[in-house]
Amino acid sequence: MAKLVVLYKRPKDPKAFDAYYFSTHVPIAKKIPGLRRYDVSRGSIATPTGPSDMHLVATLHFDNMAAIQAAFASPEGKATAADVDKFATGGVDMLFFDDADV
Amino acid sequence: MAKLVVLYKRPKDPKAFDAYYFSTHVPIAKKIPGLRRYDVSRGSIATPTGPSDMHLVATLHFDNMAAIQAAFASPEGKATAADVDKFATGGVDMLFFDDADV
Repeated sequence: MAKLVVLYKRPKDPKAFDAYYFSTHVPIAKKIPGLRRYDVSRGSIATPTGPSDMHLVATLHFDNMAAIQAAFASPEGKATAADVDKFATGGVDMLFFDDADV
Repeated sequence: MAKLVVLYKRPKDPKAFDAYYFSTHVPIAKKIPGLRRYDVSRGSIATPTGPSDMHLVATLHFDNMAAIQAAFASPEGKATAADVDKFATGGVDMLFFDDADV
């Protein structure tokens, strides 16, 4: 399996972010071809030393790295990326990688 | 479910890091009480614009946030944290949060 981890930093308006994320962004992202599973953090993000400056962490699961590359290149992936710009007012990092249990 | 995501930045010696991580650190971390699943990135970490400065991403799965707090407080959790200091020469970020499918 491969994962796309999306790390959203604290936005200007967290309540507006959450409302938009779950009502509008999730339905757009769920159309991405090859998406096998999609899970999202709920509530605050902690670190060992206290609260984090991250607001939300989303993990999108695909079969492999090629499927993630194909997802980014698809019309649905491009629509999802364009939508991120509408609400990710605190910035966002995306990391993707092959992944296996140890 | 709740997740502990461990983001290791590029270490000084990536090959030595990988050898130590899989042969020594994983067996120590797998003893953490309450750990349900443990998966680790394989190969390089990408971003939409090219390679990332992250070297390895580990995800440790627990039943809930209380289980993660208990894990950190346990002798096995403390041993794991102390071991991280031995090889994470590029720095490390840890994030933990409740998580659910969308």
